[in-house]
Amino acid sequence: MSTLIRNTSQKGLALSLLVSSMLSASFVSAKGVTWDDIENDANTPEDVLMYGMGPEAQRFSPLQQINKENVHTLSPAWVMSFGDEKQRGQESQALVYDGVIYVTGSYSRIFAYDARTGKKLWSYSHRLPEGIRPCCDVVNRGAAIFGDMVYFGTLDAGIVALDRHTGKVVWKKRFEDYRAGYTMTGAPTLVKDQKSGKVLLIHGSSGDEFGVVGKLFARDPLTGEEIWMRPFVEGHMGRLNGKESTPTGDENAPSWPRDENGELVEAWHHGGGAPWQSASFDVETNTIIIGAGNPAPWNTWKRTAKGDDPRNWDNLYTSGQVGVDPTTGEVKWFYQHTPNDAWDFSGNNELVLFEYEENGETIKATGHADRNGFFYVVDRENGDFIKAFPFVDNINWATHIDPDTGRPVEVEGKRPPLPEPGEEKGKAVEVSPPFLGGKNWNPMAYSQNTGWFYLGANHWKEDYWTEEVVYTKGSAYLGQGFRIKTQYDDHVGVLRAVDPVSGEIKWSHKEKLPLWAGVLATKGGLIFTGTGDGYVKAFDEKTGEELWKFQTGSGIVSCPITWELDGEQYIGLASGYGGAVPLWGGDMAELTKPVAQGGSFWVFKLPKFEK
Amino acid sequence: MSTLIRNTSQKGLALSLLVSSMLSASFVSAKGVTWDDIENDANTPEDVLMYGMGPEAQRFSPLQQINKENVHTLSPAWVMSFGDEKQRGQESQALVYDGVIYVTGSYSRIFAYDARTGKKLWSYSHRLPEGIRPCCDVVNRGAAIFGDMVYFGTLDAGIVALDRHTGKVVWKKRFEDYRAGYTMTGAPTLVKDQKSGKVLLIHGSSGDEFGVVGKLFARDPLTGEEIWMRPFVEGHMGRLNGKESTPTGDENAPSWPRDENGELVEAWHHGGGAPWQSASFDVETNTIIIGAGNPAPWNTWKRTAKGDDPRNWDNLYTSGQVGVDPTTGEVKWFYQHTPNDAWDFSGNNELVLFEYEENGETIKATGHADRNGFFYVVDRENGDFIKAFPFVDNINWATHIDPDTGRPVEVEGKRPPLPEPGEEKGKAVEVSPPFLGGKNWNPMAYSQNTGWFYLGANHWKEDYWTEEVVYTKGSAYLGQGFRIKTQYDDHVGVLRAVDPVSGEIKWSHKEKLPLWAGVLATKGGLIFTGTGDGYVKAFDEKTGEELWKFQTGSGIVSCPITWELDGEQYIGLASGYGGAVPLWGGDMAELTKPVAQGGSFWVFKLPKFEK
Repeated sequence: MSTLIRNTSQKGLALSLLVSSMLSASFVSAKGVTWDDIENDANTPEDVLMYGMGPEAQRFSPLQQINKENVHTLSPAWVMSFGDEKQRGQESQALVYDGVIYVTGSYSRIFAYDARTGKKLWSYSHRLPEGIRPCCDVVNRGAAIFGDMVYFGTLDAGIVALDRHTGKVVWKKRFEDYRAGYTMTGAPTLVKDQKSGKVLLIHGSSGDEFGVVGKLFARDPLTGEEIWMRPFVEGHMGRLNGKESTPTGDENAPSWPRDENGELVEAWHHGGGAPWQSASFDVETNTIIIGAGNPAPWNTWKRTAKGDDPRNWDNLYTSGQVGVDPTTGEVKWFYQHTPNDAWDFSGNNELVLFEYEENGETIKATGHADRNGFFYVVDRENGDFIKAFPFVDNINWATHIDPDTGRPVEVEGKRPPLPEPGEEKGKAVEVSPPFLGGKNWNPMAYSQNTGWFYLGANHWKEDYWTEEVVYTKGSAYLGQGFRIKTQYDDHVGVLRAVDPVSGEIKWSHKEKLPLWAGVLATKGGLIFTGTGDGYVKAFDEKTGEELWKFQTGSGIVSCPITWELDGEQYIGLASGYGGAVPLWGGDMAELTKPVAQGGSFWVFKLPKFEK
Repeated sequence: MSTLIRNTSQKGLALSLLVSSMLSASFVSAKGVTWDDIENDANTPEDVLMYGMGPEAQRFSPLQQINKENVHTLSPAWVMSFGDEKQRGQESQALVYDGVIYVTGSYSRIFAYDARTGKKLWSYSHRLPEGIRPCCDVVNRGAAIFGDMVYFGTLDAGIVALDRHTGKVVWKKRFEDYRAGYTMTGAPTLVKDQKSGKVLLIHGSSGDEFGVVGKLFARDPLTGEEIWMRPFVEGHMGRLNGKESTPTGDENAPSWPRDENGELVEAWHHGGGAPWQSASFDVETNTIIIGAGNPAPWNTWKRTAKGDDPRNWDNLYTSGQVGVDPTTGEVKWFYQHTPNDAWDFSGNNELVLFEYEENGETIKATGHADRNGFFYVVDRENGDFIKAFPFVDNINWATHIDPDTGRPVEVEGKRPPLPEPGEEKGKAVEVSPPFLGGKNWNPMAYSQNTGWFYLGANHWKEDYWTEEVVYTKGSAYLGQGFRIKTQYDDHVGVLRAVDPVSGEIKWSHKEKLPLWAGVLATKGGLIFTGTGDGYVKAFDEKTGEELWKFQTGSGIVSCPITWELDGEQYIGLASGYGGAVPLWGGDMAELTKPVAQGGSFWVFKLPKFEK
């Protein structure tokens, strides 16, 4: 700029001022979201820049304009329909930046709305090929934003970067073969490698039910070029700067069995572990922290040496949480919630970074409510197990997590047995929680007010039996059949406040339908979430008392956020029922049948009735 | 009942009480909506039992809890998504009875919601065959209710009666061949023949753009059996009790031309006149009053004797308003707004029954804002023309309506001429209003406060030219091409208050997008309507000042209603963009492209913030 301003002839000055103001405008605008903005996301309530509302994924906002005293007056400010004749599950968490809301919709769509009025600024609907294979509905969980680009994943195993002002595609990449079952539903996230200073776009892949090898990717956010790729099946080879890097774990994959010829079994080649949720990032230790998916196939015996005990075959690095080095994509640490997972518990549920005091010490941990029914507190500096306790009733596959080893103490007979000779199916065993989990993907919140976690859990169970399975590209690779059943007459969903230090359930709020929405906690002492039958609700963080609800017309399976604009606090979330429950949920299908599909974004605020 | 109660043995008494209470319950419930309820609909704000909110179709409510002082606090109470992956135009007016809202949706669906919570009580989605031919989107404009049944029309030229408690089909009838272009989009209505005392279900048919002969039907509401049918092309034969009754008008159809062989021309056989809107009912004169559609095809020369002046061939009974005898289905009177309609002005717009004083006399009239741009006041006792005046700017096809004859004084050269020899298309002429009308189907309201009509008009125009056409079953039968254009840069839609006595435009409110929603007036001094860009709005009846708006997320093309429940006044309407404008609207397509599709029912009330 300074060189331009040196020109002092009158015409030149006018021109230089014009150019200068144009450049400033474009400079400010071109700058857009910085890493510092993202790193501080949790403390800057005027924007929401990351899935999880910050690298620690706490979903806690310092806003308190909406509080226990006035939340009962909360009212819709505006609503926008996603449109098209496309509905199904709307699982997105929105982002807010510079007065614009970015929200993804079902069928790989993204919308930019004026945050003040809801006016649609642009939308992008990804052209999906025939033959995509999303296991669990055509959902998308959200976007990432950096500089002047917004990023989101597509069901054809792609990721797209769009100009945040225009919605024009800047780049798009397909990271794998969607015909093999690879998809992308999770929100990508940004991290800054504290060593190199590079900002990276991190995203995973879905597809464990089709026998993919789950992979985590780091890309240059400006170009989309891959920087590294890390597979989550032990012994598979990683990639760095376009070249083979290191195998994941031991190149011989000793946690996976071999056949009579000494070859790794079929399952190893299609071993799952897909990190399909979003990564958290521990800036202090420079570690990407993410859950790894279930091993494939579901059938435990396909991943166990013939005649041996499955507990001898952990099938690393599946159904656990992983610390990844952003510089190289190396696994820094791994903790496995469910060794040789026989129940599709996966390890994908979000990892929330939090600290707590115990015996005078500050412990830096991850909090994780696993599908297997246990809440885990793990040392996030090294992946060491600290503690675990049940967060749902009637867990019957394990009695507890051994406090010394961090391994589950399994109940005998809960791994669905092989079929008897001559039978096509094994004997059914009743397992709780079922594969849909004590809690599923729907992310919990951590309140800095109470130090408690707030999570949308479910009480249900399943009949589970084995079936024969051979890998066929693009076909379901399960080897197990199931039927989901209710546990209680009066509820499936149960919103719970959980003390991660004592393991106490502080309060429970029951919902007739399964809970499948994310949770938001605010400094105002409120817990927000949505219900399967269409309500967005607010609860007292301390007592669980329901303080407010509003019927949005379709079921809610999205993640609420809050932000401040022009001095007012807003709550926003998508409404639109779908996701895994109505597709896979057995007895839940009857419960959820009355719920109408939808597709809209809702914004609420306290009423201000100026005339 | 009394016979049962005579049994006084203890067990017998218990039984008799049980049976008695069951019978009472079923008796009360079986009674349901009576004719008296419908006749008094406009004065009983706890329910809305008829399209038009009463037999006079005034869309005026005596409710005034929501008023000019507090309407700015009006807030959503609940919303329900229609669901499915079906959206498009939601043009319905809802009904309210006994705490239940009945609303029809696109694609021939109907929903029953608990008026307090929005909980879906039942829904019915009509199975539509391949090959239906709705000209103007897959819309439905509403249901009728009588006894314990609700009724609505289907796009496959059918009408369905459902149990209002369960949504189970009681009867369904297909009244014509949908492959020929017959459909049904309008709400049926109930009338009580004051002579026979019979309550009749009245409904019309759509399809003029496919060359149907428009027909009006009366049915037994309990069984669906046809009582009479009246075609609206002169000389076509009516039906009564399953037998030929009388021809409509003169059996020789002198208002239609004959060919060189003395045979009635092709157009007569497919002459249109379809009464696709809903009937009003004048109890006092025992007259069904309804608009008749445009003559088919659009091309004026196909309905004019070769070489003659079209003004000599009126093509009765099209593009006018008809008084029909409910006892026999005979035409009692007819007034034609657009003789030999060359512009697809149709006559279908609603007929509102109202009274006014002039020169010390009470005049019982119909008020009708025609697509042709003129507002008509017609004597509803005999169909005599009283007065007409323009309600939109720049009408260019006629200078005025002759006060003596009631016939338009046409501007020469505004009937699109035949193609020059050797040409395929005729020379284009610019016509205003275009065929989409100065106002279209979207019904106006009449306020008993002001004595004014409130209507959603549009300022647009078209290029119009003739083309050759020969009737082919199921194909468009127009013989005319067109392109709709804007008239003004700043608006297309214009909400207007019109004094039917003086012909004055009392106020105008401009909207950028075309207006396509119905209007509601209330005793509270408010005018409600919806806009193409998704707002529901309230205006001051006197000044047109916009007092309140709320963004519903999709365009609004439905009819707002109001009712009272548990002492609170509610406003309800559907949101979901579609209808004729985006399909046929030429330059409007660009204007309306940003509007997202939707499909939901919205309920608003004044906030009551009890904790």
